[in-house]
Parts: sequence; structure tokens; C-alpha cells
Amino acid sequence: MAGEAPKAVVLVSGGMDSCVTAAIARLTHRLAMLHVSYGQLTERRERRAFEQIADFYGVSERLVARMDHFRQIGGSALVDPSIPVPEAGLVPGIPVTYVPFRNAHLLAVAVSWAEAMGARAVFIGAVAEDSSGYPDCRPEYYEAFAEVVRRGTRPESGIEIRTPVIGMRKEEIVRRGMDLGAPLDRTWSCYQAEEQACGVCDSCLLRLGAFARAGFADPIPYRARPAVASARVAP
Amino acid sequence: MAGEAPKAVVLVSGGMDSCVTAAIARLTHRLAMLHVSYGQLTERRERRAFEQIADFYGVSERLVARMDHFRQIGGSALVDPSIPVPEAGLVPGIPVTYVPFRNAHLLAVAVSWAEAMGARAVFIGAVAEDSSGYPDCRPEYYEAFAEVVRRGTRPESGIEIRTPVIGMRKEEIVRRGMDLGAPLDRTWSCYQAEEQACGVCDSCLLRLGAFARAGFADPIPYRARPAVASARVAP
Repeated sequence: MAGEAPKAVVLVSGGMDSCVTAAIARLTHRLAMLHVSYGQLTERRERRAFEQIADFYGVSERLVARMDHFRQIGGSALVDPSIPVPEAGLVPGIPVTYVPFRNAHLLAVAVSWAEAMGARAVFIGAVAEDSSGYPDCRPEYYEAFAEVVRRGTRPESGIEIRTPVIGMRKEEIVRRGMDLGAPLDRTWSCYQAEEQACGVCDSCLLRLGAFARAGFADPIPYRARPAVASARVAP
Repeated sequence: MAGEAPKAVVLVSGGMDSCVTAAIARLTHRLAMLHVSYGQLTERRERRAFEQIADFYGVSERLVARMDHFRQIGGSALVDPSIPVPEAGLVPGIPVTYVPFRNAHLLAVAVSWAEAMGARAVFIGAVAEDSSGYPDCRPEYYEAFAEVVRRGTRPESGIEIRTPVIGMRKEEIVRRGMDLGAPLDRTWSCYQAEEQACGVCDSCLLRLGAFARAGFADPIPYRARPAVASARVAP
């Protein structure tokens, strides 16, 4: 792609959604990649996925930001070892894996970095399908945040917030990723384990169901791959 | 004050504006105090001021959040030792002490903590008078952020963003603080020093001018107290 393409900061958690978001961002922008370590239990594994995705795309501008305060604040199974990660499948309402107001922290780091380096966009792999649970995955949340960015940065910065997969269903994200040659084999989604994905947490179930409906085999290994997974989340 | 007052998180930097904000918040809320260490050069001194202000108000719920990524991001004299803190007085435009999009990080931590503990408000001592320089000190910025909070937290959270000193001139903040018995002697404003305030950086000049116009003596000691200070920032 042309060297004069504008620069963008992509938030890369190491999961599938942000990996496909990076693959899309790359079509129009030069990439810088940001990973935020906020004390999630599977952080080491997610960070490894981040580095492997950045390697795949040859991205040299990388930032790993560390936020210890989520553990101090607590309130989520993702950062608090005393709250068990549920295995019972997907239930309605806000799940215990919800980290209060988390995405605002991720966006804040991304926007600060973008402003400091002159990047014109921040890409985040939020998915509205998840918004039954997480209030900060909805398009109207990002519209409001974009307004904060317009009002809270230097006038000439012009940083956009881009959420290219927000309207996609999980299986469309898989398909788009396969189309673009995204390194889905390097991504990590499991909330519980660090070596082999557990295959039974909410996040594994969502991922397995998405691959099944997209008609692809998930390229990562699982400790258990329950036969009910795709049935449970099928429409 | 009544034990049933709602709880609020107050962002306390250790400076005058946030100290007076705490004094105002206390009239209507039970306080929890949050300090964010983001690598500013005078952090140890600011944190000491934070603890002393919290002690003064008998606040037991305290959180000190550490953000190392501002140093990684750079771009401001407040966190980057290679950029000198200006001594030349107040000049128009965005100053080199501007930390890109900083207040969004502070608010994000405050809102996450508020949501986790069930607090109903976040107080921040932003002052619009400073907004000639800092884009994130204007009322419209906080209105936009409040919308992000409404859309990005649990519906029942109902967390308000309160900026009680945003419309005040610096001398009014001093007067209001004196009226409310705020511990201004425990606050710290200097950008340069950690033991005795320098008396010559922008922040010292603003503070000295504010006390002079309010008709009070600033209770903290200064290394130098230039005769021009109040004249330079007088209307």
C-alpha cells in the first residue's frame, strides 16, 4: 500500500475481532498497534497473540500499556480471581466478565497515542452483537466517544474513531477475516486458559459457534470441543 | 453530614482546584478520593498533597492509579524530561505542558471505580479559564463525556460528571476554598519542584496571581516569589 497512507492506531487485544479489524484498517492506513494489559487473567496469552499478529503484519510501532488499577477496582471475573468465570453458556443481561467502563480506558490510551504521533484514526474491534451484555460495545457509545475526541484533542488532530466490525455477526467476522487472509490462527479468545483454549467459557462458545456457522474449521486447538457449542448459540 | 448521602469519587491531583472541588463535593456527598499518577515530574510531591488532603477530610476510600503509558507516549513537558517546562510566563496557544487527551484517562478510572462501588457522581476540578491551552478543560468536553458515561455504563448506575469550579476564575476558587475551610496549605501546584514551589513556572504564576487578586496570602512557601507575578497575570 502507498507510503502516504494516513497512520492509524489499532487496538489489538489478541482476539479475533481486533485481528480482523486490523486486517480491515490495513486496507486504508499504515498501522500502529496498541495492546492494553489491564490485569485480565489470560493476559500473558493475549499479549503473545498481540505480538504474533503485529509480527504477521510487520508492524514496528507497538505500544503495550499496563493498567493495574482494574485489579484494584475489581468487580469483574476477568480481573478478579475470586469471581468464577461462568461455564454455563450465554445468559441474558450484563455478564460477570464485564469490566466497568473498560473500553473508555482503551480508547483514551489509543487517542493519546494517536494525537502524540499524528495518527488520524483509532480502530477498535467492538461488536454490537456482544452489546446484550457490554454497554460499551454499541455504536451509539462510539458516536458519543468520537464527540469527546473532537472536543478534547487539538483542533488540527482530526482523529476518527473507527469500528469496522461493529455491525457484523461473529460468523461474518470470521468470513471477512478469511477473505482478507487475517492470521486467525494467531488469535486467542479463551477467558480461562493460557495454553489450550478451554472450549467451554462464553468466549470459546461464541468463537466456536462463529466458525461453525461461517463454515470454517477454527485453526486453534481446544482442550474440549463440546458438540453442543454450535447448537447452543445457533439462531 | 448525613450518612445516607450518596457517594462520589473526587479526582484529587493535589492542586488547588481539585482541593476546592472536594470541599464542594463534601457538601452533598460522601467522598472517595482518586489520585492518578501518570508520570508527571512532580508526582511524589503531588501524591503527598493528595494523601494530606484525604487525611484532612478523613477519607478512607482512596485509590492511587498508576499510568506508565504517558511516559511511553511522551509529547508533554509534564512527563518528558527532555522538554523543558517553560518559565517565560503565560503564552497563547496549547502549552507544552499539555498531555494529549489526559483528562479522558482520569475520568475513565473515576467512572470505573464509581460504577464498581456504586457511587453516583464523579467530581473533577477542571477550570475553563485554563481552556485557552487545554482542550479538555471546557464545559462542552464534560457534557460530551457525560453522554459517554450514560451510554457506556450499566443503565442503573446513573453516574453524573460534576465540574463545580469549571466556570470560576482562579481567584474565585481561592475565595470559595477559604470560605469552605479547604486545606489550601496542603495543596501543591508547581510543575518544576518537589520541596519548595519554584514561583516562576506557569502554574506557580497562576496560583500566586489568584491569591493576590483574591486578597489572601498563599500559605505555601516559595523558592522565589517574583514581584511581577501578580502584575503579569492581572487583567
